[in-house]
Amino acid sequence: MQFELDRRRPGQSRITTPRKETDTCRILSGVSEGVTTGTAITVFVPNTDQRGHDYSEMSIAYRPSHADATYDMKYGVRAVQGGGRSSARETIGRVAAGAVAKKILKNLAGTEILAYVSQVHKVVLPEDLIDHDTLTLDLIESNIVRCPDPEYADKMIDAIDAVRVRGNSIGGGVVTCIVRSCPRGLGSPVFDKLEAQLAEAVMSLPATKGFEIGSGFAGTFLTGSEHNDEFFTDEHGRIRTRTNRSGGIQGGISNGEIISMRIAFKPTATGHNKQHTVTRDKKEMELIAHGRHDPCVVPRAVPMVEAMVALVLLDQLMAQHGQCNLFPINPNLQEPMLLPGLEPNKVPL
Amino acid sequence: MQFELDRRRPGQSRITTPRKETDTCRILSGVSEGVTTGTAITVFVPNTDQRGHDYSEMSIAYRPSHADATYDMKYGVRAVQGGGRSSARETIGRVAAGAVAKKILKNLAGTEILAYVSQVHKVVLPEDLIDHDTLTLDLIESNIVRCPDPEYADKMIDAIDAVRVRGNSIGGGVVTCIVRSCPRGLGSPVFDKLEAQLAEAVMSLPATKGFEIGSGFAGTFLTGSEHNDEFFTDEHGRIRTRTNRSGGIQGGISNGEIISMRIAFKPTATGHNKQHTVTRDKKEMELIAHGRHDPCVVPRAVPMVEAMVALVLLDQLMAQHGQCNLFPINPNLQEPMLLPGLEPNKVPL
Amino acid sequence: MQFELDRRRPGQSRITTPRKETDTCRILSGVSEGVTTGTAITVFVPNTDQRGHDYSEMSIAYRPSHADATYDMKYGVRAVQGGGRSSARETIGRVAAGAVAKKILKNLAGTEILAYVSQVHKVVLPEDLIDHDTLTLDLIESNIVRCPDPEYADKMIDAIDAVRVRGNSIGGGVVTCIVRSCPRGLGSPVFDKLEAQLAEAVMSLPATKGFEIGSGFAGTFLTGSEHNDEFFTDEHGRIRTRTNRSGGIQGGISNGEIISMRIAFKPTATGHNKQHTVTRDKKEMELIAHGRHDPCVVPRAVPMVEAMVALVLLDQLMAQHGQCNLFPINPNLQEPMLLPGLEPNKVPL
Amino acid sequence: MQFELDRRRPGQSRITTPRKETDTCRILSGVSEGVTTGTAITVFVPNTDQRGHDYSEMSIAYRPSHADATYDMKYGVRAVQGGGRSSARETIGRVAAGAVAKKILKNLAGTEILAYVSQVHKVVLPEDLIDHDTLTLDLIESNIVRCPDPEYADKMIDAIDAVRVRGNSIGGGVVTCIVRSCPRGLGSPVFDKLEAQLAEAVMSLPATKGFEIGSGFAGTFLTGSEHNDEFFTDEHGRIRTRTNRSGGIQGGISNGEIISMRIAFKPTATGHNKQHTVTRDKKEMELIAHGRHDPCVVPRAVPMVEAMVALVLLDQLMAQHGQCNLFPINPNLQEPMLLPGLEPNKVPL
Repeated sequence: MQFELDRRRPGQSRITTPRKETDTCRILSGVSEGVTTGTAITVFVPNTDQRGHDYSEMSIAYRPSHADATYDMKYGVRAVQGGGRSSARETIGRVAAGAVAKKILKNLAGTEILAYVSQVHKVVLPEDLIDHDTLTLDLIESNIVRCPDPEYADKMIDAIDAVRVRGNSIGGGVVTCIVRSCPRGLGSPVFDKLEAQLAEAVMSLPATKGFEIGSGFAGTFLTGSEHNDEFFTDEHGRIRTRTNRSGGIQGGISNGEIISMRIAFKPTATGHNKQHTVTRDKKEMELIAHGRHDPCVVPRAVPMVEAMVALVLLDQLMAQHGQCNLFPINPNLQEPMLLPGLEPNKVPL
Repeated sequence: MQFELDRRRPGQSRITTPRKETDTCRILSGVSEGVTTGTAITVFVPNTDQRGHDYSEMSIAYRPSHADATYDMKYGVRAVQGGGRSSARETIGRVAAGAVAKKILKNLAGTEILAYVSQVHKVVLPEDLIDHDTLTLDLIESNIVRCPDPEYADKMIDAIDAVRVRGNSIGGGVVTCIVRSCPRGLGSPVFDKLEAQLAEAVMSLPATKGFEIGSGFAGTFLTGSEHNDEFFTDEHGRIRTRTNRSGGIQGGISNGEIISMRIAFKPTATGHNKQHTVTRDKKEMELIAHGRHDPCVVPRAVPMVEAMVALVLLDQLMAQHGQCNLFPINPNLQEPMLLPGLEPNKVPL
Repeated sequence: MQFELDRRRPGQSRITTPRKETDTCRILSGVSEGVTTGTAITVFVPNTDQRGHDYSEMSIAYRPSHADATYDMKYGVRAVQGGGRSSARETIGRVAAGAVAKKILKNLAGTEILAYVSQVHKVVLPEDLIDHDTLTLDLIESNIVRCPDPEYADKMIDAIDAVRVRGNSIGGGVVTCIVRSCPRGLGSPVFDKLEAQLAEAVMSLPATKGFEIGSGFAGTFLTGSEHNDEFFTDEHGRIRTRTNRSGGIQGGISNGEIISMRIAFKPTATGHNKQHTVTRDKKEMELIAHGRHDPCVVPRAVPMVEAMVALVLLDQLMAQHGQCNLFPINPNLQEPMLLPGLEPNKVPL
Repeated sequence: MQFELDRRRPGQSRITTPRKETDTCRILSGVSEGVTTGTAITVFVPNTDQRGHDYSEMSIAYRPSHADATYDMKYGVRAVQGGGRSSARETIGRVAAGAVAKKILKNLAGTEILAYVSQVHKVVLPEDLIDHDTLTLDLIESNIVRCPDPEYADKMIDAIDAVRVRGNSIGGGVVTCIVRSCPRGLGSPVFDKLEAQLAEAVMSLPATKGFEIGSGFAGTFLTGSEHNDEFFTDEHGRIRTRTNRSGGIQGGISNGEIISMRIAFKPTATGHNKQHTVTRDKKEMELIAHGRHDPCVVPRAVPMVEAMVALVLLDQLMAQHGQCNLFPINPNLQEPMLLPGLEPNKVPL
């Protein structure tokens, strides 16, 4: 859990916000002698670098493209310091919970969830440079921008450094996320399709503006026969698809192929430039925001995306086990949930 | 309701599936003397053009990029005729419910939800051709492809006709959807952000592969200062933004500007070409699907998208009224929910 | 399903309402060739004996202890004919769904849910007359009042007949419900305790006024040591309790002993006596209700109680399987869910 | 909030457990400058008198009528010290949240929720001694057993003292709870009837065995005409009932009369007598429990019941406002939610 929180925390490298939040987590309940007890797990992560005075002017002025104005419209009150629930600090809880979910999925079904940065502003990583079958966490973590191609990682870091020294924020970016060895059968018809659950989960992360699954928007330029994923039976007798434009999900249900998603993040809203805005009293004014924010959000967004995907998959795995594995109708067709060789009560959760 | 169902139904024009489902709806419960009684509204829409024999071979073969294989993996059983819940016929319920939601939103808050086709395969409607302030339903419905620009509508229809006569399906497409006069304050922080709710809702529609809100993926190429929407106070004393890259939602909460979304639909999976696939018994075979399907799904997807957006917004409006309008803390900041001149108990629901 | 609906329907015997609703069910969706397809099962049960004119005066007058007044207070509109959602006809849906749940529970875990009438007005069946280990459905169904003791059944029927001929309704009554062979481990700590779920479910039935589990209100007169259920290990090596004042649930979780509940039903509100009431316009008036209602509700309440209990247990069984059987931590302690000899994929659902 | 927690905490008087938990609450988030910010309110209440060694033998033995055995059957693991989630300490969270709900209900609608002890073992407070129209919190809090009749309070305290000195626990008891000035219209037809919500909420409290609303089990001995609550129009032009056997709820919806409930609590399971039980290894043994527990649970259960009722009512008030006050259909019939003279944005929350 601490490993994941460190991937998320501010101040982890020169290209993230200079805030020095250590984000040390302490588990207050729910775990005893190394195993979960079933009780809700409370994780306490105090904020060690809160500077209230940075936010004084903002108590009356609405920062453009922040949640200040809409929170006031909705609630009539907001937590000015650090943004309250609109602060990206709330993602600590997501990452902590996701760490548990990832561990369970890994041990139970061998499922691996890996996200990486595939675009920073105008530096776009070509998709065919990354082999999703062999991609590793080490490769992603081998550089501070979390791009698994060393050459493009350098380009991205250079681009961020160029604006960072001027106190600016660079443009937005894209995080690609894949799931390997996802159990088959996750997701439900109609409203609870797996891609809908995934879209909701990642689009609830701060700064997201778009979501794609499989072929995504690019797939609209293909014809039906170009887009279809033909089936075959592999050497292990499993039904597979030769291509994977479906992105591992067909009819709302995982088919065992690699799930692939792309998520668009807008540029950081807070810069150091002067901007026009209005106050709570609707008076126009000019604002220079002084908070210490990331020049580029996507490197720190990587563990957030992984966490949200893990939480969705574990929820769906439990639902699937509770529904379809409780009373299998046709075991010859229905997929076993576990990898060969893994027995559920032997795995070290 | 029937108007909306007619926009969705097959056989409505030459560019949709030749199936002749009339989709006449009959309300069985929940409405008495012109008003809803609070009881669940049951709408009965029998299928008048079901041809079971079209689907005989498909009972053993898995159609590529359909839900056949994943349903068997999950359930061990599936409704072969018409696809069961994986059939787009299930969207009738969405459109019927959405018709009620749209009426309430319109009468209560003047909210208008308008979707249109902005891309068919390689015919891409330039965004600046459509003025979202003045767009009307009549303009969208003025042609069978539901593109509000007549010139591009003709291009799209021509492209569909070209493949239709060969029995093929054209590529996918994009539906753009806007919401005008959306009440401010809808949506919640953290997990229930309005864009997350909208993403989940539309991504649960069949054939969707991507979702964008506001600036979307294109916005990643902007810098923070280019992307920010500066605030001003308009002539009615309302806080507005000069630009709208946020797409009407900031911090997960609607700000009263036009909400704009783009949704990617993949090409129709069923074509008349021969494809490789496998059977339930994992034997490889070649399949020519014979169902009667749309050469292009996006014209019929337009009312589906509108319906899902309407359902999300009405849910959120009820939540907002139940939470924040029940005990307003600061009425000077919090937004009234109703348009001037509209009184809730006077509106003809 | 039809068997259960027949146990619920009006006009089944002389001691129920003389309305002649046949309640013939027709399954419109969700079942194909004898197995469920996973699609929602739609059951259509038209009302064949609706007499709208019986209810004319009641369109303006509020019947005492009916839902008329509160529905108007809440909604401002109500379905006068037959009571709409406040009519006990809505329990058809519960009984139909419960029939499916009971079948699954029976086949999967051997679970039996049996309810019977243990009190009609002042005729109180002594608890020790009924042996819950050997009670059968046949015994319960052997008389029209559904009391498994023939002597007390006669007393109850006589009491009902005495008031029925005068057009009156008798007092209320009590339904006792037991669950045999309930899987262990159902229910959750804190808010979702099994007894809380059961209480909610049965207290949502019309006319219920009280709920007891295990020792109930009578148990408050025992001391702690009198009330405690001591553990022992039975001849099959299973941990059991010698007494069962807990009613089969400890700490909110089923322990495998017989679950026992008692539910109080108030007397039928509609009688043929003149009563004081007010109209929608708040004018006082006298009302003689003319609907045809049961002289005693409890015989027909028996299948309703069983249905609600079945639905709760199946929900909890699915939750338990999805959570604790997905990754058992200590299989020596955790209970297998199935009866010995039953294999889930062999059972004829 | 602290006032309510003090009513709940152990060691508050000689008739409660001698554990000295101060239960001092500290609000970690969600409140700023005296108003809630909309963020989740985190209340931190550390346990200051935890004695792990009291529980050593119980790590292997199952205490009768505790959750030890069922937790192991379900989870295979449990928190031995203090019982984890099966400890009544979890009710701190309920009482803290209920304190907020009670304040909102009081300020917004003048709603008062008052619970008191009406039975301790064999000391039964006659119902007609308490006038629910004039009952006050001061009267209830005027003695340590929380019985509003001084004479019966003394009897109850004497009964508890008699067993307390011997280290025993007395029998169970009953808590009666009333709600005055409950807004009309709360609750929904069919499944979400208000009494069902209330039953679920209080039956999720530890040690509950029964729930009654209005006339309860005693009402089954009345005939329909004896039980019915006739309507009249009072001097303020409000529709009222002359009697209140319905307990303030008709058709699942509050009618503005006093809501009255009775809840049965079983005797404290842990006593100091020797009892037979089994170990995790299914070996039989004798156990003397050493934890420090209440001789009688009902005095401390009073604030728990109030809290759960408050939470249900506030939920339902929000739902009602979000649904029926958003678009009233017939304002002449539908009830205003607020007391005369109260304006929602003026009340000091």
